[in-house]
Amino acid sequence: MKKPLILVTNDDGITAPGLRALISYMKEIGDVVVVAPDSPQSGMGHAITIDNTLYSKKVMIDLEDEKTEEYSCSGTPADCVKLALQELLSRKPDICVSGINHGSNSSINVIYSGTMSAAIEAGIEGIPAIGFSLCDYNWDADFSHAKNEIQKIVREALTNGIPTGVVLNVNIPKLEKKQLKGIKICRQARANWKEKFDKRTSPSGKDYYWLTGEFELLDKGEDTDEWALSNGFVSVVPTQFDLTAHHVIQTINNWNLN
Amino acid sequence: MKKPLILVTNDDGITAPGLRALISYMKEIGDVVVVAPDSPQSGMGHAITIDNTLYSKKVMIDLEDEKTEEYSCSGTPADCVKLALQELLSRKPDICVSGINHGSNSSINVIYSGTMSAAIEAGIEGIPAIGFSLCDYNWDADFSHAKNEIQKIVREALTNGIPTGVVLNVNIPKLEKKQLKGIKICRQARANWKEKFDKRTSPSGKDYYWLTGEFELLDKGEDTDEWALSNGFVSVVPTQFDLTAHHVIQTINNWNLN
Repeated sequence: MKKPLILVTNDDGITAPGLRALISYMKEIGDVVVVAPDSPQSGMGHAITIDNTLYSKKVMIDLEDEKTEEYSCSGTPADCVKLALQELLSRKPDICVSGINHGSNSSINVIYSGTMSAAIEAGIEGIPAIGFSLCDYNWDADFSHAKNEIQKIVREALTNGIPTGVVLNVNIPKLEKKQLKGIKICRQARANWKEKFDKRTSPSGKDYYWLTGEFELLDKGEDTDEWALSNGFVSVVPTQFDLTAHHVIQTINNWNLN
Repeated sequence: MKKPLILVTNDDGITAPGLRALISYMKEIGDVVVVAPDSPQSGMGHAITIDNTLYSKKVMIDLEDEKTEEYSCSGTPADCVKLALQELLSRKPDICVSGINHGSNSSINVIYSGTMSAAIEAGIEGIPAIGFSLCDYNWDADFSHAKNEIQKIVREALTNGIPTGVVLNVNIPKLEKKQLKGIKICRQARANWKEKFDKRTSPSGKDYYWLTGEFELLDKGEDTDEWALSNGFVSVVPTQFDLTAHHVIQTINNWNLN
């Protein structure tokens, strides 16, 4: 059987340890091509480069692996996927995986996530796609405890396919391997960030702000990604890019608009 | 009765004609505060500024109106809303309106839209919010034909409220006033962009790309925003930020994962 072609990308940049870990796990499953940002793109949401130029170059990061093609790209995660599919790959990949992100993309974080925007972009183009994130912001975080779960999810996606219009948002708790309880299919928990802006003054006397904030969970459900993560499970949220609130169309139709 | 407080923002920048038109329409409804990007932010999706500083300053663009407070901000549309709500406004606004965008944000464009990300950010914070876009990319586009429809939608939103977890994505066809047929509540049409990258060489000999593409409608439904727009209606899509594909949870639960 032909090996699957796996497109690997991320938002932390092509040298991020989380990407390198994901590449090594994927090489045990199929042929890997990497197209990833040349600099960190966290919090980029689904940004794309419209009014600016994009650069891309073939790079070699892992000197012991001459077979895996890797490209860095000056754009956002969504740009990387567009460029990969239209210009860099010789054939349509069988799956696109993004991550492993250094930090959680559970609940409302999915909206701000560059990792997930890459997966969503691939999904829009009709490629099965999965974003992986670890709930640990450290650059030297350990990803290995979830290697089995990550590979299992990718293998099942390759076997079963992912329904049209859906991509998977996978988050991994920061735990020891023996503490991991398994995988749970979940819904996105309702939550938001209680922002605070730290106001400071620059050396030249100009006021500026740093965005900070605290995560605020607003959802007591036990079927959410947040519940799964705090109870030792890897969370999998099927995520869609039809944003229509179909259940509300009736309500708005009763407004006095015409 | 107290006048409603209306937060106005956009993604084309604080001097964009579409924003200036929206401000003038909103001043007939309530008290307006403007917090908008100091430079164009089209295609920024739901990007936020995490690892960088934000600047904001009070500005006066309309010299004949000393009453309306206006602030420019160095960040993305989502940053503008966060900063407005946490730092700049003296009270919670009754509604947030974003736009009028120079260009369509119908169907899949909602994913890439800075205009809609500002509205979604306000929605996450519990503020009723609406994004407005005109299907005309020209900087000197005429917005006036839809003034009545825009005001009607905002007034109805203030009267009825918008259901929790939902914001409105309003698109306006490029037409004469007398050609406008009314307002339709719709779902987001299925569509994507058939990308093409224009490969060029810089003066110093480096290859670079420009993203171009053609819009590809994949949806024959007559209940979509694309149908409404091509048939002379203003489209209103109730849009949610719970991205869970609830209908798919059952399917994925049958995968062999545990």
